[in-house]
Amino acid sequence: MSAGAAVRPIAVIGGTGPLGMGLALRWARAGETIIIGSRDPQRAQKAAAAIQQKAGPQAQVSGMENAAACAAADILMLTVPFEGQAALLKQLKPAITEGSILIDATVPLAAGVGGRASRTLGVWQGSAAQQAAELVPKDVSVVAAFHNLSADLLNGLEDQGDAPLDCDVIVCSDDPDAAQLTRELAAKIPGVRALDGGKLENARIVEQITALLIGMNIRHKGHAGIRVTGLPPGAYR
Amino acid sequence: MSAGAAVRPIAVIGGTGPLGMGLALRWARAGETIIIGSRDPQRAQKAAAAIQQKAGPQAQVSGMENAAACAAADILMLTVPFEGQAALLKQLKPAITEGSILIDATVPLAAGVGGRASRTLGVWQGSAAQQAAELVPKDVSVVAAFHNLSADLLNGLEDQGDAPLDCDVIVCSDDPDAAQLTRELAAKIPGVRALDGGKLENARIVEQITALLIGMNIRHKGHAGIRVTGLPPGAYR
Repeated sequence: MSAGAAVRPIAVIGGTGPLGMGLALRWARAGETIIIGSRDPQRAQKAAAAIQQKAGPQAQVSGMENAAACAAADILMLTVPFEGQAALLKQLKPAITEGSILIDATVPLAAGVGGRASRTLGVWQGSAAQQAAELVPKDVSVVAAFHNLSADLLNGLEDQGDAPLDCDVIVCSDDPDAAQLTRELAAKIPGVRALDGGKLENARIVEQITALLIGMNIRHKGHAGIRVTGLPPGAYR
Repeated sequence: MSAGAAVRPIAVIGGTGPLGMGLALRWARAGETIIIGSRDPQRAQKAAAAIQQKAGPQAQVSGMENAAACAAADILMLTVPFEGQAALLKQLKPAITEGSILIDATVPLAAGVGGRASRTLGVWQGSAAQQAAELVPKDVSVVAAFHNLSADLLNGLEDQGDAPLDCDVIVCSDDPDAAQLTRELAAKIPGVRALDGGKLENARIVEQITALLIGMNIRHKGHAGIRVTGLPPGAYR
């Protein structure tokens, strides 16, 4: 970790997938210090180098094995397929720093068990985020967010460069401070507005929306996102 | 029913509630012939007169008891609280015309059984719309739509008149023709775009979104709706 007191790195766990890479890229450009975590440290370093190259020389991006990334940060962004989420969190539990914030973007797509990406699995706890909350140490705050951002758009379409996104991020958590920090991180992505989605239990709805958008993308070859309309300006941040 | 061959009335079943009144008002203004259905025929007629007054003298609005309304139309718009949906459909089954289209906007809010309006009930069939499909005659096509429109905005806020809505309608059905007709009806409401939400089973996601929006309305005193972004222009109609 950097010696600078103000630096609070974000560890993107399972960060070599499209969503992790895209979030890391956008945050690196916004001046955040990013640690890409992966099972394979070399893969993490390679992904970090790729993001560094896209984000420019001022960007702060490194790559580490997942547990080392957890130990080096107290903001953890989890971007793994649902079928790997529980096993990974059980493995990482001892490495998670006390008082960390875990931001979970996991969607329980049926595709993870051989079904369709436009369908979801029922999760006993109600949502993937609530499953995560059960698996992390008790003093870790879990936030559900970033499910509905198009990874393609985050990474920049070849024909459109790095256009701003046209999507809101709905943030659900039982910890208001962790939710606020997450909304601030969301708002650092150009074009993104952050919204208070209420308690963590509401993640079950936000996660489902992703499956609906995937179905629309399949039907229309798009990069669907959502905007919430009709709320007063103070609701968006 | 009118003698005009081109007239295909829409019966708004349970149409004296805020969503039914709002849809009826907007469709009456767009030139559709509307039958308001209610358990109580006098209440239906009173609601029809109120809509007639708001929509203007050219509007075609009448009121009937629910079963008579069903018998007089083959486009049925169901706008009832979830806790009344199954009993009403069982009662109306003999009155539903062969080959009718039933558009269902029911959301299984937990508020219907004493819980919160920002939470939903699990429905055995997957969604309120799929429950409806099980209860109507076999030759009736069920479409799920109009869940996420603000009834307040449809009816016109006092301080804003009848502004266009800022909301998309996601339409789910196993019958492509019924879905298309429903999308055309949605697009007759100013500001509304209609989207193909896929098969009826996807209604389970669209219904949930309403509960999420209700939670946001409670937190922020708004009239939340959703827009789907990132799809090619042909996806909206």
